[in-house]
Amino acid sequence: MSPKITGELLRQLRQAMRNCKYFSEPLQAYIVPSGDAHQSEYIAPCDCRREFICGFNGSAGTAIVTEQHAAMWTDGRYFLQASQQMDNNWTLMKMGLKETPSQEDWLISVLPENSKVGVDPWIIAADQWKNMSKALSGAGHSLVAVQDNLIDAVWMDRPERPSTQLRALGLDYTGKSKADKITTLRAKMTERKITWFVATALDEIAWLFNLRGADIEYNPVFFAYAIVGMNTIRLFVDLKRLSDPALRDHLQLDSPSKPELSIQTFPYESVYTELQAICAAQGPKDKVWICDKASCALTQVIPKAHRSAIPYTPLCLAKAVKNATEIQGMKMAHIKDAVALCELFAWLEKEIPKGNVTEISAADKAEELRSQQKDFVGLSFPTISSVGPNGAIIHYRPLPETNRTLSLNEVYLIDSGAQYVDGTTDVTRTMHFGTPSAFEKECFTYVLKGHIAVSAAVFPNGTKGHLLDSFARAALWDSGLDYLHGTGHGVGCFLNVHEGPCGISYKTFADEPLEAGMIVSDEPGYYEDGSFGIRIENVVLVIPTKPKVGPRYSGETVLLPNQKCREVVGAELERQGRKDALEWLIRETQLIA
Amino acid sequence: MSPKITGELLRQLRQAMRNCKYFSEPLQAYIVPSGDAHQSEYIAPCDCRREFICGFNGSAGTAIVTEQHAAMWTDGRYFLQASQQMDNNWTLMKMGLKETPSQEDWLISVLPENSKVGVDPWIIAADQWKNMSKALSGAGHSLVAVQDNLIDAVWMDRPERPSTQLRALGLDYTGKSKADKITTLRAKMTERKITWFVATALDEIAWLFNLRGADIEYNPVFFAYAIVGMNTIRLFVDLKRLSDPALRDHLQLDSPSKPELSIQTFPYESVYTELQAICAAQGPKDKVWICDKASCALTQVIPKAHRSAIPYTPLCLAKAVKNATEIQGMKMAHIKDAVALCELFAWLEKEIPKGNVTEISAADKAEELRSQQKDFVGLSFPTISSVGPNGAIIHYRPLPETNRTLSLNEVYLIDSGAQYVDGTTDVTRTMHFGTPSAFEKECFTYVLKGHIAVSAAVFPNGTKGHLLDSFARAALWDSGLDYLHGTGHGVGCFLNVHEGPCGISYKTFADEPLEAGMIVSDEPGYYEDGSFGIRIENVVLVIPTKPKVGPRYSGETVLLPNQKCREVVGAELERQGRKDALEWLIRETQLIA
Repeated sequence: MSPKITGELLRQLRQAMRNCKYFSEPLQAYIVPSGDAHQSEYIAPCDCRREFICGFNGSAGTAIVTEQHAAMWTDGRYFLQASQQMDNNWTLMKMGLKETPSQEDWLISVLPENSKVGVDPWIIAADQWKNMSKALSGAGHSLVAVQDNLIDAVWMDRPERPSTQLRALGLDYTGKSKADKITTLRAKMTERKITWFVATALDEIAWLFNLRGADIEYNPVFFAYAIVGMNTIRLFVDLKRLSDPALRDHLQLDSPSKPELSIQTFPYESVYTELQAICAAQGPKDKVWICDKASCALTQVIPKAHRSAIPYTPLCLAKAVKNATEIQGMKMAHIKDAVALCELFAWLEKEIPKGNVTEISAADKAEELRSQQKDFVGLSFPTISSVGPNGAIIHYRPLPETNRTLSLNEVYLIDSGAQYVDGTTDVTRTMHFGTPSAFEKECFTYVLKGHIAVSAAVFPNGTKGHLLDSFARAALWDSGLDYLHGTGHGVGCFLNVHEGPCGISYKTFADEPLEAGMIVSDEPGYYEDGSFGIRIENVVLVIPTKPKVGPRYSGETVLLPNQKCREVVGAELERQGRKDALEWLIRETQLIA
Repeated sequence: MSPKITGELLRQLRQAMRNCKYFSEPLQAYIVPSGDAHQSEYIAPCDCRREFICGFNGSAGTAIVTEQHAAMWTDGRYFLQASQQMDNNWTLMKMGLKETPSQEDWLISVLPENSKVGVDPWIIAADQWKNMSKALSGAGHSLVAVQDNLIDAVWMDRPERPSTQLRALGLDYTGKSKADKITTLRAKMTERKITWFVATALDEIAWLFNLRGADIEYNPVFFAYAIVGMNTIRLFVDLKRLSDPALRDHLQLDSPSKPELSIQTFPYESVYTELQAICAAQGPKDKVWICDKASCALTQVIPKAHRSAIPYTPLCLAKAVKNATEIQGMKMAHIKDAVALCELFAWLEKEIPKGNVTEISAADKAEELRSQQKDFVGLSFPTISSVGPNGAIIHYRPLPETNRTLSLNEVYLIDSGAQYVDGTTDVTRTMHFGTPSAFEKECFTYVLKGHIAVSAAVFPNGTKGHLLDSFARAALWDSGLDYLHGTGHGVGCFLNVHEGPCGISYKTFADEPLEAGMIVSDEPGYYEDGSFGIRIENVVLVIPTKPKVGPRYSGETVLLPNQKCREVVGAELERQGRKDALEWLIRETQLIA
């Protein structure tokens, strides 16, 4: 992996920062956040501005350019990758380490007095704007909204915003109609005396309307906004996408069942002016719900007195608790995924000794095998297929220049998943096809202990996921080891592989309590830089357990543990006639004598 | 325990709320926080305003009175006690339960439009004022500072503020001179470009000047403020207390060693006007450090542009990390405490069968035995001596009307501790002097497992205590059980038995990381309402351990575990010639065959 050469780009960006065409005064710094106008984690190529300017293409990171410096903040998953993708113009800021300054503190330490720091208000979240603005003005600087994006100004061949075909999902996949979802949302609004709700997160909009798109790779979402009132529903989307009669029928665009469920459609770009008009016509007691992670630009349209900013929207919370249809779909998706992985592992066992399997070919094989399964749509994230030292790069993605051959001598880690129409999968296995070292075995055992501790955890109602995080680490800690990432994230149902509001991580305290029906990943790991990586991941379903004394919940593994795995996945392998994989499964799930 | 009759008091308070002598307009609600002007947890009788108005005398709770309602918020430790101490005029608000509204939400739900909510700005912390004020004004109400305290206005026989004799501590007890502490503080100030530091917490002031008082029962502190500049030290205290020549010598009041270490003394009440004068004379870049938990009244003296509000002061952080002298003192104090407890348990074994030992007499005996130990000053908190169902009242304190006799049939829980000049102790033991039920044994085992899990925990540098909380609960959770309090708190050295900034609790995320030298309690429990209570508490010292791979810390039990306990405490019992207790210790620490 060779770093991106950024000297000329930085020169042009700094020129734009000084150019009063974009802002009335020269900017002493410019912030390039990671997300798009919807604060998506995965983004479309047209929104990869941070990657464009610094070269680092991980899913999380913020770049800041000043007249003299260029620095990029990312977390432990990406320290190695970022250091390899960025050239010497950039300083890597390792978040989570004690000695790493926050973006605010760093800016304050390098800026001349009375500086202007620019940012595109559409791609910075309102809460981030607020914190950054407060810190900067406390030190005599100011954060300013620059309407023209300065990266776009220097990005000559920037791609178009995608507008892929939309797919309507029926009740057999969603388990709840969009009318029912709207009604539930309005009930929450009534309960909290809210008159308008602004939806900006793409997965929430897709979930609400039971629609899917393919605008962002791996994430079956489409660019849109929605504003829901007590009697109206406004959907902002590229109108060209709504010509398909089946789609118009799904959305009841031409003949709504009830007037209050009628959907008005508007061009994607008109959300700003429509929201302005709604706010201008508001009564004195009207309140507008918007997520505090929505863009600063859209949030500030709503007058402060009418704005009710919330950390998680009611859609986010409702979406996280899967209904029976979704749970069944997620289980089916993981059984199909297990079939593909059994086939992969049986194939790897045969092929690796021949010396022709690489990280890339193994990942391709996994994708090929998954694509043979029913209702396969695509991958749910770029496959992490990593051998030996590459395994220590937590969110590694094999590239031709880093591609390593699988062998009997090195640990192989594969973290992969797919989008099926019935569910989204995410699973990690770490294998050694020869004889692992004593230290590798030791670390694997600690990671497995942590994985089991979380999936076997029983906990009271109302427990937040971050309280389970240490269970995953205890065995590692005991030997002075740890891993620099969270233990789990929410997983969508044929939606984003990472979703809120629940998760299992030491890093957050604002997570919502785990509830029955929530699905989260359980993925502790251990990474020995330059040597190997280990991660064991299943997704787990939170279920109520029979109380011995008080009520409580615990996790159920969606990808089934050993004995049940043999039965359920074995039956499916047999039905599909995949003999090699079935043999492999039977052998690998034998009881240890 | 019969509830306090509050009808007439509430009538008088509501009259004062309507009386424009105290505030220019009638108040629709009045908030009575728990603390004093220093946000102390334990308070002097003159500051027990919340107890005066509602009857509840636990250490945490906030009362709010409106024209129609009276409600009191407290946490799980006090649900039973509060419900027994308050009459029907009061609604108990059980904090931590999902259905319990926050104070803000409740006020908003019951207040008429445009209400004024009053509070004494000296006894509400600045951060609480800010949150409450924001929430109320968001709903069209306003929080107003009422200079005359309205409880004092209706409290006819309110006691005087105490002014006890001060005690100077030498280096053999403190391990660090006040000059060194001031120098360290100023270095931190320089590092952060701070010109003034305002100390308002009584234990921080006592620690800084190596002084102790007895103004608040159980807490060896004295009413004072301090303001430290780069060249000046101002101490605000009842000046009558400084007449003792030895004390004047300790503080070098008459002949300071260096001018910048000279202490200027002012009357306690003049802190407001002195701080005003300091702020009026400030340069444009001057910054004043004050804890965000300091009183709203004092905080608002400092102009916002000059104010740097911090969650924990540098004194709080420095005080939490005990030096070698303090650690040695804490260990000695716990050995002496163990001697007293061995004697108590040997005595209880003999006396209980006679049927004459009550909760109160057992507590008195424990105090008597402790008072025989060297450098005993007093108890560190009211002894919780509880039998059977009283044990389920988490912060129970035996009173004549609740006093129960110890027997061979019920669980006995004693949570007690003392102030010695060399250290502060806090220990809980749960005993059964006959045959416990299977369920009692089961619960005891889970609590003990949790206690051991915390004291044996190994964790990386920088780990915050709240990440260890679930370790204490896992065994209980597994059976559907839990306890409604945190697992541990910081413990002062001949100072407050509860101190920040570290602790082990699911309730906080803002705790500071555990560091070697910090001392915290480890006290999981289980409470079966109406039946029994179990808690096992030692205080543990965080120590560096030999790393297997990476650097890490773990806990060391200050009150020693079994085998070491026999050796260390046994030797001390022998030295003191306490034969019965020694015999008891030898028998109770036998290896289980």
